[in-house]
Amino acid sequence: MTAPALPDALTRARALVNPALRDAIETLDRHSRRLASYHLGWTDEHGQPASASGGKAVRPTLALLSAEAAGADVRVGIPGAVAVELVHNFSLLHDDLMDGDVERRHRTTVWALYGAPAAILVGDALLALASQVLLESESRHGVAAARMLGRATQELIRGQFDDIRFEQRRDVSVAACLRMAAGKTGALIGCSAAIGAVLAGASMTTVEALSTFGAELGLAFQLVDDLIGIWGDPSVSGKPAGSDLRTRKKSLPVTWAIANGGAAGAELRSWMATPGPDTESDIACASGLIETTGARDWVEQEARRRLDIAENAVISVPLESNARDELLALGRFVITREF
Amino acid sequence: MTAPALPDALTRARALVNPALRDAIETLDRHSRRLASYHLGWTDEHGQPASASGGKAVRPTLALLSAEAAGADVRVGIPGAVAVELVHNFSLLHDDLMDGDVERRHRTTVWALYGAPAAILVGDALLALASQVLLESESRHGVAAARMLGRATQELIRGQFDDIRFEQRRDVSVAACLRMAAGKTGALIGCSAAIGAVLAGASMTTVEALSTFGAELGLAFQLVDDLIGIWGDPSVSGKPAGSDLRTRKKSLPVTWAIANGGAAGAELRSWMATPGPDTESDIACASGLIETTGARDWVEQEARRRLDIAENAVISVPLESNARDELLALGRFVITREF
Repeated sequence: MTAPALPDALTRARALVNPALRDAIETLDRHSRRLASYHLGWTDEHGQPASASGGKAVRPTLALLSAEAAGADVRVGIPGAVAVELVHNFSLLHDDLMDGDVERRHRTTVWALYGAPAAILVGDALLALASQVLLESESRHGVAAARMLGRATQELIRGQFDDIRFEQRRDVSVAACLRMAAGKTGALIGCSAAIGAVLAGASMTTVEALSTFGAELGLAFQLVDDLIGIWGDPSVSGKPAGSDLRTRKKSLPVTWAIANGGAAGAELRSWMATPGPDTESDIACASGLIETTGARDWVEQEARRRLDIAENAVISVPLESNARDELLALGRFVITREF
Repeated sequence: MTAPALPDALTRARALVNPALRDAIETLDRHSRRLASYHLGWTDEHGQPASASGGKAVRPTLALLSAEAAGADVRVGIPGAVAVELVHNFSLLHDDLMDGDVERRHRTTVWALYGAPAAILVGDALLALASQVLLESESRHGVAAARMLGRATQELIRGQFDDIRFEQRRDVSVAACLRMAAGKTGALIGCSAAIGAVLAGASMTTVEALSTFGAELGLAFQLVDDLIGIWGDPSVSGKPAGSDLRTRKKSLPVTWAIANGGAAGAELRSWMATPGPDTESDIACASGLIETTGARDWVEQEARRRLDIAENAVISVPLESNARDELLALGRFVITREF
């Protein structure tokens, strides 16, 4: 696959959301503000203005499109877009620390630069800020949006708990792995794709359809992420080849291969218990083993299947047609990106 | 001073709040639920029922009394009481990890027992749950309460940031130290003492008076805590003698002594830069040095002065008289406790 062009919606969303996100960050204490600005790529480690990438802004884009899809002005979705981006970044800050990752988006992570306590606190500040943004907004539906975001945040935390528990377990079922991904990735993307519609006062049917779109897209996104973690091109992904294999991550391809791969699966299971470090040929051998079992095909098909469910959800309800088309385009972009 | 009897209000509040707190914890994912139940003293490390102390419940008690003080039924304050207790426990979970404390209330802390990632995640879950409890409550004023709690949480985080920054600085002013305590301890106690009144729909004058009561009481509480950290009786406090000196904590007595203590202050400043470990006589010498400067007297007077401001605040507005008396009794208890 080749990477498709970045959909216009992403660029437009960043331009609309960033000023509001900056206003929100501005209300924080100066320590949280400084660290959040660094994390978001707005400043360098000396506090000087920078313009590093703050990520693709998939979640805020979905939030804005969902307001438009429900027939409202795009601006109606802004508090929701800011709030989901804050929750996403809270989870990245805590995740990087929990995983011991020293680099994100080609920059040193906050905990690695400023210490674990600072990363914990700035993450806490962003989490608390997310619901403040919704409750302090002028929207009549800010409370409903904050309720939905609260539930998605608990699902996200549940998924992260599953994730750290899986590291301590030898065997994880494919179903458990999918449930974990539904929490860790699906819940917040599902909330993002519906929160603008909630702020627009859309019907429950519309909100649920958009939420399903996002949740299934989130799962497709995670499946593709897991493919990239094994077969991604290092020059595109910015990660070493087979990075998820080196860390012995119980990703979906690995879990599926062990569960369904017969002798090759058993061999992979044994290899996963070896400590490394690995040579290039160890990695090539392990990824070949996974491919042999059919796991790569299964994950590709499952991502496609999830995208189909997502697309059907937004096709099944009346939505503003331009916004719907952009949601569909964003969905296709997400699963064919950098791969 | 001798410890006064525990005010009845604390016991009554625990009986009212615990069932609602359990209901809230019950909505969490099973990992968060298990760890929160352990942290709150409801279960032991094997998940078996236990009845360890979950703390004195000062914050929920203030929340309930503030509803009554505003003329409402005590039950009106329950969602607020649950929410402030959740924020308090979120901050304890993250604080214990950041400080590396392996024991709290004579039990192993969550991070020490289950690992840092688990402590981060369960803290996150409690923080998110706090605003959910208010927003999902039936109260017409739940949103106003959640807004106030959000602001208090940001102040709390600001205070904790100041705290960790102070550890890296050699000199901290008394004013900076008081500002830190106002954030770390005053903000949430201030919110606790007013959140019930907010849920009762009280006037802004009443809410502000109660909030001032709590914030000043919180500062008095912290001043007394700092005295206990140096001169507390180990058999009462459960901490070793001079525990704050052993950790070289820049507490208010130390900060005041260094700023105002002339030669003795300078000597203390040098001693604070020594690494330890300390003998009993090192500790006795350092605490004697602090006492020489008049810092102990100053802290005692400052705690008394803060309590006076607190008391005047609740005397200055019309409040239900029984609840007001209980607030005043709780205030006196808090600054004369275990010391």
